[in-house]
Amino acid sequence: MIIDCHGHYTTAPKQLQAYRDDQIAALKSGSRPSDRGTLTISDDELRESVQPQLKFQRDRGTDLTIFSPRASAMAHHIGDATTSLHWSQHCNDLIYRVCGLFPDKFVGVCQLPQTPGVPPANCIEELERCVTELGFIGCNLNPDPSGGHWTAPPLTDRYWYPFYEKMVELDVPAMVHVSASCNANFHATGAHYINADTTAFMQFIQADLFKDFPTLRMIIPHGGGAVPYHWGRYRGLAQDMKRPLLTDLIRDNVFFDTCVYHQAGIDLLLKIVPADNILFGSEMVGAVRGLDPETGKYYDDTKRYIDHSSLSADAKAKILEGNARKVYPRINKLLPA
Amino acid sequence: MIIDCHGHYTTAPKQLQAYRDDQIAALKSGSRPSDRGTLTISDDELRESVQPQLKFQRDRGTDLTIFSPRASAMAHHIGDATTSLHWSQHCNDLIYRVCGLFPDKFVGVCQLPQTPGVPPANCIEELERCVTELGFIGCNLNPDPSGGHWTAPPLTDRYWYPFYEKMVELDVPAMVHVSASCNANFHATGAHYINADTTAFMQFIQADLFKDFPTLRMIIPHGGGAVPYHWGRYRGLAQDMKRPLLTDLIRDNVFFDTCVYHQAGIDLLLKIVPADNILFGSEMVGAVRGLDPETGKYYDDTKRYIDHSSLSADAKAKILEGNARKVYPRINKLLPA
Repeated sequence: MIIDCHGHYTTAPKQLQAYRDDQIAALKSGSRPSDRGTLTISDDELRESVQPQLKFQRDRGTDLTIFSPRASAMAHHIGDATTSLHWSQHCNDLIYRVCGLFPDKFVGVCQLPQTPGVPPANCIEELERCVTELGFIGCNLNPDPSGGHWTAPPLTDRYWYPFYEKMVELDVPAMVHVSASCNANFHATGAHYINADTTAFMQFIQADLFKDFPTLRMIIPHGGGAVPYHWGRYRGLAQDMKRPLLTDLIRDNVFFDTCVYHQAGIDLLLKIVPADNILFGSEMVGAVRGLDPETGKYYDDTKRYIDHSSLSADAKAKILEGNARKVYPRINKLLPA
Repeated sequence: MIIDCHGHYTTAPKQLQAYRDDQIAALKSGSRPSDRGTLTISDDELRESVQPQLKFQRDRGTDLTIFSPRASAMAHHIGDATTSLHWSQHCNDLIYRVCGLFPDKFVGVCQLPQTPGVPPANCIEELERCVTELGFIGCNLNPDPSGGHWTAPPLTDRYWYPFYEKMVELDVPAMVHVSASCNANFHATGAHYINADTTAFMQFIQADLFKDFPTLRMIIPHGGGAVPYHWGRYRGLAQDMKRPLLTDLIRDNVFFDTCVYHQAGIDLLLKIVPADNILFGSEMVGAVRGLDPETGKYYDDTKRYIDHSSLSADAKAKILEGNARKVYPRINKLLPA
């Protein structure tokens, strides 16, 4: 079984965006609705909407996608905690329904109702609902709910600890994933995403988060941002700062996905980062949707790059399946062994 | 001749920091001195202070360092435009004196007196002084004078154009280089530097800056941040956005240095980015000062990685010398042909 750990519901029926547009219009008009309103989408519409994902799964030979709401649309900087909660609940409920319609093709990961200035403890209830009631296996955690202004404390700050306690209790990991940028300096998928990945990794080097939470697991997407390319810099910085070896620091706690969209990048990742710390991911139907004219294949068909790498069969098996089962253990209750 | 395009004066005599400490103390006390004050350092002290750089040049077989004030100490977020001007002038004057003492070992690049909220046109006078009076060949341009809050417009915004006009007139390039971070999310050399590199490159993809300034040249340090590792992502994003091919976009205008501190990273850079767009750099006596226990050599001895790469002799010659002469043409007036 091949598990893609990084898929977002980027093809939701248009009613979802209409709901969001109404929500934003209400905010602009000065009214902040206190009830979450309704969203009407039929099962047939949901089935139809994920046909692109299902076709790519078939074409690329993958089996299951760990599926979460569209990352760029989380936009935690819009409105307040109530806005964010309503929006997150609707988005998560749709993921739940898609997973119910295609239980062997999608497993759910939730969006969190984060809001700038509001402690992440505020997200515990929605995490618990998604995991215990909807059968989700993880969450996407935004280190910068401000959308490019970086006003929250670092991920290693005690500000985040109550939320981590719940993650540990539920035994679910988080993918560290920012959302849209409202800072003109940062293109969302071309700068903000990659910067956040790099930033989170350096934060993890600087502090003892994983001493405090030995079973806390974080997936840094997009191949770990700049980290594998600058592995020598990070090894050297950790050494100068008297911090642990990177391989020790990440062993049970930090994982990179394979959302790197060319062979040479994937080859570097696979060469540098231990296979135990890499999870297959594509973020397909995502940031980069075109065909690479140099290969005639989709840029984001990352399984091809792994297939074409010189990695051992054992290491490939870990990356394509085993590590996902280890990092997201709740998946094992949903899948055949 | 081997030219290291990326060296900062990180070993200045302690009087320099004492001057800065006094300047900051005066700001804190509420007094903002209107004269720039004095800094007394003897030529012998300057000679002594750069012995580490000279020793590394000898040990590593490099000849000349393009030398600028310590990047992390620029700290444009401290004080106001007058603070920044006084500090920059002192720092630049020291570079001038070091270059005068060792004219075959160092060539100067200036710090700019940038300040958050003050248009970069404000820096034209100091650039002109450094280039026309002190013989400098380029400048370091900070895309985020706020130090991690990213409050300035993108580098492609017309906000920066008057400064670019002067760069073009003087025929000097800029290295895009941030300074210290005062945002707790961003470790300076482990996150802020690398993020800025990635951010600047994406800004260049998004806009027509180099149509407006066909001879403007920007060096993106630290191996281009995350860019070569994510080259497929950037090719794909540019394609989806109907922007030029990356190789066309960067050809005469965007260059990466080789400050990547392990062999596999350098190998990726050299494989992916055209040799015409890479300049040898080490940032030695900089961010990472230790010996790599895996090699027994300094992490930042980047010349070793280039020597050990499979690049052709012709390409190596471009990277080690030719491209620096092309990108910083004023260097040719100072050096034998």
